[in-house]
Amino acid sequence: MASERLYLDYNATAPLLEEARAAMLVAMELAGNPSSVHAEGRKARAVVSRARDAVARLCGVPTAQVTFTSGATEAANHVLTPEFRMGRAPLRVSRLFVSAVEHPAILAGGRFAPDQITVLPVDAQGRLDLGALEAAFSGHDVSTGQAMLALQLANNETGVIQPVREAAAIVRAHKGLMVVDAVQGAGRLDLSIENLGADFLILSGHKIGGPKGVGALVSAGEMLMPVPLLRGGGQEKGHRGGTEDLVGIAGFGAAAERALSALAEIAALEALRDRLEAGIRAIAPDVIIHGADASRIANTSFLTLPGLKAETAQIAFDMEGVAVSAGSACSSGKVGPSHVLAAMGADADAGAIRVSLGRVHTMTDVERFLDVVKTINARRLARRASQPAA
Amino acid sequence: MASERLYLDYNATAPLLEEARAAMLVAMELAGNPSSVHAEGRKARAVVSRARDAVARLCGVPTAQVTFTSGATEAANHVLTPEFRMGRAPLRVSRLFVSAVEHPAILAGGRFAPDQITVLPVDAQGRLDLGALEAAFSGHDVSTGQAMLALQLANNETGVIQPVREAAAIVRAHKGLMVVDAVQGAGRLDLSIENLGADFLILSGHKIGGPKGVGALVSAGEMLMPVPLLRGGGQEKGHRGGTEDLVGIAGFGAAAERALSALAEIAALEALRDRLEAGIRAIAPDVIIHGADASRIANTSFLTLPGLKAETAQIAFDMEGVAVSAGSACSSGKVGPSHVLAAMGADADAGAIRVSLGRVHTMTDVERFLDVVKTINARRLARRASQPAA
Repeated sequence: MASERLYLDYNATAPLLEEARAAMLVAMELAGNPSSVHAEGRKARAVVSRARDAVARLCGVPTAQVTFTSGATEAANHVLTPEFRMGRAPLRVSRLFVSAVEHPAILAGGRFAPDQITVLPVDAQGRLDLGALEAAFSGHDVSTGQAMLALQLANNETGVIQPVREAAAIVRAHKGLMVVDAVQGAGRLDLSIENLGADFLILSGHKIGGPKGVGALVSAGEMLMPVPLLRGGGQEKGHRGGTEDLVGIAGFGAAAERALSALAEIAALEALRDRLEAGIRAIAPDVIIHGADASRIANTSFLTLPGLKAETAQIAFDMEGVAVSAGSACSSGKVGPSHVLAAMGADADAGAIRVSLGRVHTMTDVERFLDVVKTINARRLARRASQPAA
Repeated sequence: MASERLYLDYNATAPLLEEARAAMLVAMELAGNPSSVHAEGRKARAVVSRARDAVARLCGVPTAQVTFTSGATEAANHVLTPEFRMGRAPLRVSRLFVSAVEHPAILAGGRFAPDQITVLPVDAQGRLDLGALEAAFSGHDVSTGQAMLALQLANNETGVIQPVREAAAIVRAHKGLMVVDAVQGAGRLDLSIENLGADFLILSGHKIGGPKGVGALVSAGEMLMPVPLLRGGGQEKGHRGGTEDLVGIAGFGAAAERALSALAEIAALEALRDRLEAGIRAIAPDVIIHGADASRIANTSFLTLPGLKAETAQIAFDMEGVAVSAGSACSSGKVGPSHVLAAMGADADAGAIRVSLGRVHTMTDVERFLDVVKTINARRLARRASQPAA
């Protein structure tokens, strides 16, 4: 069966949306630098403004509260810093709390020194332990500076949704700062910064069908801002130096526009994911679906077939024409044990296969995936049968 | 005369080359994340590798010595840091020297504290004072850490070429580090890192006809590297976290490829610039061409028409359909006095108009520009005649 490839790795990166591609093609024709004052510069600037407006609407903030970056990693390094300004006054943050299941770009802690970072535990479903959060913020000595929590909206591996609002209430009660890594939530969950209770949101263009290499830091106001990470020209109101990535920003803006309406299609995506999981349970009743007892974003399944290493399974799927991942895709070619599974108390060495769907997928795609699961599972059972019981 | 716009602001940003556009369109069709191990990921990775190879050849280094960034500003913030590693051993830099005519992204000094940065003077042509450099490095106390010089290859406003090789010899004699901002030299001058005597080169994609929002830090070896600025996933061999800007990198690679062959066309560009300057001198004999007594890159003229403010002139050119700049285009809409003119001892308040050509331009374009100069100059003379002598 010489069929097309089936790409089920949307949490690693989503293929470019047609809307994003079209916006990028238009931006490619513009000669100017968005900072130039001549007509060419003004046209380029208008493209940036339009995109900024779309991202602002996605998060329910005024346009001025969106700072474009080269991606979520830069946004994380920008906002995870001990040095803030409230207007012109310096404001110091002396401790960063992160959940154990954060993305590596958050776990790395940006500009905080390693000894300023405290990792908080999660439960068996991978949700932040709110008791531990309360204890952590209660125990923080505010005379040294404020405390900050960085928490993801949804986990990139399991899709598990974090108790962001509850966590924000705790942070707020202790007058701390709340950063929400909304990368995997965009287009899948409400991103209203007010509803989330966040001071800052981190976004990535390529997870919502925009291009790679562009993202944003969205702030709940204009007064409280991190000290710039990229010093240089006065772009982005002085918050981020460097000529704006015109083509990338145009694509991101179009994808953000699309993400605004995507929530209406979530039920269809969830039906696909549910059929996929029901199908796998039927084929392999011993399958473990990580985080299945928690609320999850609609497109993600993180699965372990006992006895089958995730890396081996991933290669087998790839050879059958199906792209899935074994953990996350954040470090070139390296597939190590999942820190997410480890934090959840699962078998990190065995790993798990992440299947992440997009709005383009259909029941036919799910059935094709299940056919491949059947093949791979049959091999697993055959290998098991031929091995002596441990 | 309803003619097309004439864009003469290549030093602010060059329009996208057809080669770059084509490479970007191909990259847009690729679904994968360059860090993913499946077929889609491998295809994306191959695009990044090909581009890296082109940039490496432009600078005469092995492919592994190119780190992609979101532009020259990020590359500057990455390399201008007190913290380096030589292999695994930490190496400390305690002072950054910069010339007074550097780009704002260099003058900002990256991760150095303001009191660690020393600005060195330039001569009336805007060239680094080598005597001052020698004295500065002689006077540096190496027991506190090494000294670093950041020097541009060519000035973005005047086009004046810096004595990089001579400066590198002084830096090397004092065992210092040499960073060359090669942004305006790419495609116009030899970028061999060995010939330049640099430890690091900073490059920007959009100044050579690639897209905005992508650049590179090129190193003379693999051992000595700055501590990462963007911490996160292990991309770029651990030197720069963040999913690679696939489309941007593809375009940058194609533009770098083109820049390799561009040096052969420099004489034609120089002939245009010479005609342009001769034409202006004929129209306005009192014109001041800044840096005209120094070696300059072939495409740039930085001009003052006495009595005509640069901002006013820039708007007048814009209304006549010609895009030039008044100083550099690095901070949104702001046009302040040129720090470059001030450092050269020229009248920074009057400012100057920068005309920067590209390889697309012809003698017809230059003649059209000169026609506009005639109009604007006639107005200048009329205004002067109507005003009482000061």
